[in-house]
Amino acid sequence: MSWLAGYGKAQDEESDNLGVDWVLQYDFSDTAQNQAIAEFRSLIHDLTEAGLRAQVRHGHGSSLLVCLRVPRDHLGNMIHQSRTKDWLFGITHSLPEGDENTVVHAETAAEEIRSVYHAVTWKKELGGAGITANHGRWKNVTASFPLHDQDACSQLLGQWNRKTVLTTEDLDTIRALFGEKVAFYYAFIQCYSLFLIVPAVLGIFGWLYLGPYSIFYGIAICAWCVVFVEYWKIREHDLSLRWGVKGVGSLKVNRPQYQWEREVKDPVTGEVMKVFPGWKQFLRQLLLVPFASVAAVALGSLIVGTFAFEVFISEVYDGPMKEFLEFVPTILFSLSLPGINSFLTNIATRLTKYENYRTQDLYDLAQTQKTFVMNFITSFLPTLLTAYIYVPFGKFIIPHLNILRTYDHNAEVASHQAIEVDPSRFQQEIIYLTVTGQVLGFAEEIVLPYVKNVLWQKWRNYRDHQVGLTRQRSFSTATDLLLIDRSDEAKFLKRVRSEADADEYKVEDDILEMCVQFGYLALFGVAWPLVPLGFLLNNWLELRGDFFKLTLECQRPPPIRADSIGPCLLGLDFLAWLGTLSTAAIVHMYRGPVAEVKLSSLLLTVFVAEQAYLAMRFVAATALQKIFSDHVRREEARRYAVRKSFLEANNSVGNGSPGPRVRQRVRFHEKVNVYNPTETPPSYDGSPTPSVEESQDEALRGSDRESEFWHGLSCDTADAGVKLIRALSGSRPVDEKWTKEA
Amino acid sequence: MSWLAGYGKAQDEESDNLGVDWVLQYDFSDTAQNQAIAEFRSLIHDLTEAGLRAQVRHGHGSSLLVCLRVPRDHLGNMIHQSRTKDWLFGITHSLPEGDENTVVHAETAAEEIRSVYHAVTWKKELGGAGITANHGRWKNVTASFPLHDQDACSQLLGQWNRKTVLTTEDLDTIRALFGEKVAFYYAFIQCYSLFLIVPAVLGIFGWLYLGPYSIFYGIAICAWCVVFVEYWKIREHDLSLRWGVKGVGSLKVNRPQYQWEREVKDPVTGEVMKVFPGWKQFLRQLLLVPFASVAAVALGSLIVGTFAFEVFISEVYDGPMKEFLEFVPTILFSLSLPGINSFLTNIATRLTKYENYRTQDLYDLAQTQKTFVMNFITSFLPTLLTAYIYVPFGKFIIPHLNILRTYDHNAEVASHQAIEVDPSRFQQEIIYLTVTGQVLGFAEEIVLPYVKNVLWQKWRNYRDHQVGLTRQRSFSTATDLLLIDRSDEAKFLKRVRSEADADEYKVEDDILEMCVQFGYLALFGVAWPLVPLGFLLNNWLELRGDFFKLTLECQRPPPIRADSIGPCLLGLDFLAWLGTLSTAAIVHMYRGPVAEVKLSSLLLTVFVAEQAYLAMRFVAATALQKIFSDHVRREEARRYAVRKSFLEANNSVGNGSPGPRVRQRVRFHEKVNVYNPTETPPSYDGSPTPSVEESQDEALRGSDRESEFWHGLSCDTADAGVKLIRALSGSRPVDEKWTKEA
Repeated sequence: MSWLAGYGKAQDEESDNLGVDWVLQYDFSDTAQNQAIAEFRSLIHDLTEAGLRAQVRHGHGSSLLVCLRVPRDHLGNMIHQSRTKDWLFGITHSLPEGDENTVVHAETAAEEIRSVYHAVTWKKELGGAGITANHGRWKNVTASFPLHDQDACSQLLGQWNRKTVLTTEDLDTIRALFGEKVAFYYAFIQCYSLFLIVPAVLGIFGWLYLGPYSIFYGIAICAWCVVFVEYWKIREHDLSLRWGVKGVGSLKVNRPQYQWEREVKDPVTGEVMKVFPGWKQFLRQLLLVPFASVAAVALGSLIVGTFAFEVFISEVYDGPMKEFLEFVPTILFSLSLPGINSFLTNIATRLTKYENYRTQDLYDLAQTQKTFVMNFITSFLPTLLTAYIYVPFGKFIIPHLNILRTYDHNAEVASHQAIEVDPSRFQQEIIYLTVTGQVLGFAEEIVLPYVKNVLWQKWRNYRDHQVGLTRQRSFSTATDLLLIDRSDEAKFLKRVRSEADADEYKVEDDILEMCVQFGYLALFGVAWPLVPLGFLLNNWLELRGDFFKLTLECQRPPPIRADSIGPCLLGLDFLAWLGTLSTAAIVHMYRGPVAEVKLSSLLLTVFVAEQAYLAMRFVAATALQKIFSDHVRREEARRYAVRKSFLEANNSVGNGSPGPRVRQRVRFHEKVNVYNPTETPPSYDGSPTPSVEESQDEALRGSDRESEFWHGLSCDTADAGVKLIRALSGSRPVDEKWTKEA
Repeated sequence: MSWLAGYGKAQDEESDNLGVDWVLQYDFSDTAQNQAIAEFRSLIHDLTEAGLRAQVRHGHGSSLLVCLRVPRDHLGNMIHQSRTKDWLFGITHSLPEGDENTVVHAETAAEEIRSVYHAVTWKKELGGAGITANHGRWKNVTASFPLHDQDACSQLLGQWNRKTVLTTEDLDTIRALFGEKVAFYYAFIQCYSLFLIVPAVLGIFGWLYLGPYSIFYGIAICAWCVVFVEYWKIREHDLSLRWGVKGVGSLKVNRPQYQWEREVKDPVTGEVMKVFPGWKQFLRQLLLVPFASVAAVALGSLIVGTFAFEVFISEVYDGPMKEFLEFVPTILFSLSLPGINSFLTNIATRLTKYENYRTQDLYDLAQTQKTFVMNFITSFLPTLLTAYIYVPFGKFIIPHLNILRTYDHNAEVASHQAIEVDPSRFQQEIIYLTVTGQVLGFAEEIVLPYVKNVLWQKWRNYRDHQVGLTRQRSFSTATDLLLIDRSDEAKFLKRVRSEADADEYKVEDDILEMCVQFGYLALFGVAWPLVPLGFLLNNWLELRGDFFKLTLECQRPPPIRADSIGPCLLGLDFLAWLGTLSTAAIVHMYRGPVAEVKLSSLLLTVFVAEQAYLAMRFVAATALQKIFSDHVRREEARRYAVRKSFLEANNSVGNGSPGPRVRQRVRFHEKVNVYNPTETPPSYDGSPTPSVEESQDEALRGSDRESEFWHGLSCDTADAGVKLIRALSGSRPVDEKWTKEA
């Protein structure tokens, strides 16, 4: 790999990828042997036909590992063609030099692997092998991934542990290893964490001197949210220009699942386009509304039920085992959530499939949108319930929960007054979310899978060993050779097998997690000023943990290009808006006693906050665009430079005069130089005589009247004007002077 | 002119422009004769130096008319260079053919005149004559304009009178005559008027069956506003692509008044750029806030004062001459408004100058923004006062206006109850605005100036004639010849003189007028359902009246390019937003008795309306973009086509092989064709033998281990896999089969 050129030489044996570009796992555990053999033959055939070299090894259990390698000159040519395509679609401005057979070196490992990815997955018409894992004909290809560059990853992780802030160069390195889509996540978390420093400092100040629900701190948080979102939009645009991926969505190939209505030959390009009408897609997208409603009702009722149950036990119930029963609702909720979630995800996937997007990018985008809706409900609804329903209206609701009628009527009336929900419960929940929740989330996301994975690998190896022992005697020597790893490959193959078993890395999930965190801050941050500090510390760990997960727990993702963090951007906008309303409402409600809040004044506060939000967003967007317009300008300059140089090259070729052209840039070549003292006096009176002009200006066509107009006066134009000025100035008789000059 | 090619031949004498491309008026009435002579000489010198031919005639009073003509081949070359510049800045995708001396014909009259405009106004470094009228050295150049193409204009106006709806081709014609900036106004009024049909029809229905303040009609109006604004954004984008002006702002030259802080050599292009930092400009722009406040206070207090005075006279005052005094406030207001307005415009112009914009476009944009703020206040504040202050709170306010103490205390108390403001006053005001106001506005804008102009011209001609009579005897014959128009030029010169005296056409004012109309509809339309119908009828006339004004009352504007209607777009957005809030509030307040309205429920209504607005705008923008994405796609296709054809041309040149290249598109040329039955059996088992591959794949560098991995197994990959499948399938003993195949 050309990434960090001096690097490959120092590779030790363990981390050497043996030149394997890509690995496919073929799993035939559920397939009849004959069918599996036919399928596998056709797999190898397709791969070979697409110019890939393949080696096969056995995987865990009933699976094979196909190691692929693209011959270097074929790969170099693919990279060149990909760059040419970038230029064709206007992603880059300069056409790469060379013709159709040119072979180039990749700039980054990601560029190289992307071409390999294309060679494996693109349809045969486009020159690929057409292998889409887990889909259609290749349902048995259960994994399709490039191998990790272990040295680079561990070196990077080591570097990060020695510094606190990632630089843009670090992001470039991630981009070089994993492609733009992943790099955008790290750019986002880095930018977000740096921005978090401001509210974290303000928060410490607020915690010491202002206390919770401070108006000043609330305004600061809202302003910060708006500025951050607007800044990130610009930063994203900058990065997409830096990495040369702006507008990259348009050149993506069609998804294999895409169904078009008709083929249209483009009148301009002559290319055949597969068209699915936009209005139809929009109508289908409208199904998002019932979906969101269903999801809201399903998840909402689950959450409300759990909540009511929990409140009932903690506030009303007074029977035996109260301390244990208090955990029951949460446990039940946690147990049923995955089921409901997977049910909803199932619906979401069907909807997204039905919406029929042309490219995988658009498909992922739409799917993430739906996930965002679900995540929004599960993440924020419980806290919203606490803040806006439970605390203010708890005293009316709780008595109704007393379905067991454990009290007599009098006691109930008494409890009516006695049960006054403690407003600090809301703050406690926020503190829990900021501290415990984040730590638990980290453990669940990174530590738990790691432990699980290690144990699973151990068990797998043990089982394979056992199977190997029983199997060893039943086959020919040739097969035996295949079944036993050669000693020098053993470690490598062990790693390949473990990577084949690993999960796919979904960068969308990580981005979504950060969005949810941003949402907590925007919506509820004002309740406890230390929230941003907690998030800042968490993100320091999160960034490294995510990278650890990416490199050690997941398959290396195909280095897909993207020019944005995707639909989460819209989510950020939405959360900043909702956050302003929510912050205003919380400050208004919780500053004084909750019971004394009037609906009309609350409404007024929220209304004013919304206008402030709209105004602030407008100002922030305008100001930031004005201030950070450098990159965009630079991009325009680059395009200009490319075109300029092309024009100059073209002019010197197209002209047929290869020598230096001296007469260039004489713009008004039909005029004599008026400053030449030998021809005319060095005065302003320098226009050529009409007779000279007549012969030069052959273009003066038209009627006689026209030519008379232009040639009618016998004297020079300036002189004529001077005469007129004198004449029209009126009173003063200037005949003598006129005669003198004439 | 090449616009309507067959047309120029039929020109009769009166409308023939005698080949004059451009006219300058030099006014020396306030200048000493010697200075005037020197200035005029230098004017002619500069023009001649820039390659322009000039003829001089006398104008009205102490002024000269300089008729300019650019020699056709110089003009053709300028047009070519301008097109090349468009390409350099990425406005167009295809580089115009030719070199620096190429001469082309203009596509439209506007393109031709634009190049003449550049030749006259651009700085000398850029190849122009540097004549900026009314500025600096050329303060005495009081007019600078191209001549109208009278035949084309009258023909166009005649065509329009025979049809009701302008087509896109009509817009193309306007663009060809007056340039894109003017054409965008007509596109806007056409699009807006067509859209108006929907609320007009709904309005008739609403007038017959629903009455004013209908909820249904209010929602329809709000939705219509949002959809219209979002549609117009797309339409504007479409047109800018159709006319090839997208992003044209970037290539505009610096204003002569632009002051830069430092010159920066662009690292990419090597061009020297004159930079004024964006953040500084933004800080200066922030002065808009105090300006808007001052304007609001000044205009607002004037309006409130007038309003209070009027109310006082009509409701409280009961003395003599009441019927006459009622008109006094309005008359005073009308008299003082121009003064205040010009004072504020003066401040606004200073502010805009201070903000220091690079191009004239940006300058105009900023100036229009400020005009918009002022117009907003003067147009909407009176009606807003009526709707939200006078009608609901009138009964509290009016008694306080009784400063004359004409009543005794008891009577005052009585009046306190008696004065109940009639809510229909608000509706009456709307009806007045829709019917009388629009008619008066039309008369004021178009009829009055026309009459004034005709009378003024008559008086001028009479005076000139008188002066001519007294002057005739005092000069030489040569001067006399200049002072008396030749009979065949007389009519032409009369027209030129009258055009030189005419006003400059400001398209921004017309656009602003339409925005204000849209604002009335959005803010108050719900009060009288026939408002849109009134506006629709008015616009039918307005469109023709404006064109009449443009062609007969104003100078032909220089055909400037633009890719939008400018800052009014933001105004439309703002008005649609405010309109939603206002409509909701009006419906809520005026449906029932005004006195019974509660603030909290009103607030809730407005709050809900705002959320509905935000949601609707999001949906409308998404849906319309999806549905009308054709033009954008076509633009991408065009770029693609241009690049593709270039690539193909380049490939055949750069390759050095001019003949047909047969071997192209063989992507995997290092592989043998696996389907060739003579070399390998027609099975899936078609990968080449390792030995063949080894010789071809010279790129397989790397360690021995690596090469061993790729060459180690002696058998074919597919065979190896098949062996492994058999081996790993486990239970079934398949040794016989294996042996058979081997």
